[in-house]
Amino acid sequence: MQKGTFLLKKGLAEMLKNGVIMDVVNAEQARIAEKAGAVAVMALERVPADIRKMGGVARMADPLKIKEIMEAVTIPVMAKCRIGHFAEARVLEALGVDYIDESEVLTPADEKHVGKHDFRIPFVCGARNLGEALRRISEGAAMIRTKGEAGTGNIIEAVKHINCIREEIEALQKMGQKQLNMKPKEYKVPAELVIAAKKLKRLPVVNFAAGGIATPADAALMMLLGCDGIFVGSGIFKSQNPFDTAKAVVQATTHFDNPQIIAKVSAGLGEAMKGLDIRELEIKLQERGY
Amino acid sequence: MQKGTFLLKKGLAEMLKNGVIMDVVNAEQARIAEKAGAVAVMALERVPADIRKMGGVARMADPLKIKEIMEAVTIPVMAKCRIGHFAEARVLEALGVDYIDESEVLTPADEKHVGKHDFRIPFVCGARNLGEALRRISEGAAMIRTKGEAGTGNIIEAVKHINCIREEIEALQKMGQKQLNMKPKEYKVPAELVIAAKKLKRLPVVNFAAGGIATPADAALMMLLGCDGIFVGSGIFKSQNPFDTAKAVVQATTHFDNPQIIAKVSAGLGEAMKGLDIRELEIKLQERGY
Repeated sequence: MQKGTFLLKKGLAEMLKNGVIMDVVNAEQARIAEKAGAVAVMALERVPADIRKMGGVARMADPLKIKEIMEAVTIPVMAKCRIGHFAEARVLEALGVDYIDESEVLTPADEKHVGKHDFRIPFVCGARNLGEALRRISEGAAMIRTKGEAGTGNIIEAVKHINCIREEIEALQKMGQKQLNMKPKEYKVPAELVIAAKKLKRLPVVNFAAGGIATPADAALMMLLGCDGIFVGSGIFKSQNPFDTAKAVVQATTHFDNPQIIAKVSAGLGEAMKGLDIRELEIKLQERGY
Repeated sequence: MQKGTFLLKKGLAEMLKNGVIMDVVNAEQARIAEKAGAVAVMALERVPADIRKMGGVARMADPLKIKEIMEAVTIPVMAKCRIGHFAEARVLEALGVDYIDESEVLTPADEKHVGKHDFRIPFVCGARNLGEALRRISEGAAMIRTKGEAGTGNIIEAVKHINCIREEIEALQKMGQKQLNMKPKEYKVPAELVIAAKKLKRLPVVNFAAGGIATPADAALMMLLGCDGIFVGSGIFKSQNPFDTAKAVVQATTHFDNPQIIAKVSAGLGEAMKGLDIRELEIKLQERGY
């Protein structure tokens, strides 16, 4: 079997642009997500809010669960492996999932991340800042997402992360050559990745929002801040009306620049997921991985 | 009675290569482990997760318990003694167990380890790094295992330990003679052990994974990282379906390089052991012994 080239993997990720990827824990939720207009689903045993509540060690989902979800929908299916757990990643590849999320939502298996160039299928990874994003890309990630703070329904961390990445790319534009030359060493990445970010004025792969999105307006905010698309985890199926919320988040992502539409789709959705204050958290998932 | 030579003990340990050794607390569990394909069992009064929960001083198991387990199975039976407690080790040898694990899972009895050359039967000891592994071998251990962090169901510490040992052996290859000459003193071991590790590009005895393995993919990961076999403690009998989990871990250890098989055997196992976050631990068992 031929390994996917990085260009191909990057292209696959670009096909999801402006779309919403939703966490689902069974075939029924997967069908709801597809019907509501999700461009892909993330197959899980538990959404992040429940992983957080349950504590203990969170691992790759049961292959049976992943297969059940793969068989329920025609859109791409993603699944999560633990940071550094390349044996779980190999299992997910063997199962035929479309993307792997090497995710801080699960308990890390190593301080080093998976060598993602060794795989045929594309990976998405979380990042809080430009250095972290470029390190993941240099390891082979074909798609980046903000880490945010998963399972909180609280957007502030995701906002911080996308702002930080944008500001660090803006700062590259103003740097002298000497300062610029120090960045690859600081970020621990090849120089061409820093040069690419400077030249493109963005990351060289798509950058989605994730970790705390709970409402249509949250999705619009992240798109207005420059994200290429949206991951919603607990936000959909922990809300009072999952199908309506899912549809509204998709609409808001597409029409992020049209507040009239967002006002309309936000009306009468019922309770959003309850959510958590960041200061109340015992464990910050975003601190997993570097 | 003639004492076992080190070569014989080392050979006995090598016979377990590519196999899985499972913690069992009674005859019934021992029979399940044997039926599931374990190459040996570790006779205990409590699995590490319960030792951790219970607190207090953990000691050698009741000889009655060990005999019950020895009578239940035809595969080799191991039992644990406290670090440095050579009286417990003599009792275990008198009972006729096949291997002794001088284990940090029990409460240490001395800062010095048992002089293992004085015994007929082979010992296995835990290690976090090359120096610790070679010190145990120089004391007479015929088998090494990663310490990991027992009773957590969390693989990250075992991954750290096997990576550390591998990287320290790799570093030996690149060292100049002067640097190399300093290693025996640094590690507090005879020079021939350092030379052997350099020459063999591995430890001079088998090196198993232990401390945190809970899923088939965890076992595969440790084998992919270069371990010679697997110890599973709480991971089997703290899971929802012990027999299926045991069988699946054995399959994944044998076929660690075949993700198709690991995907298949991982499907529908039910809940794995719940596990513990490393940062939540009050006591790190791995810090016992040096």
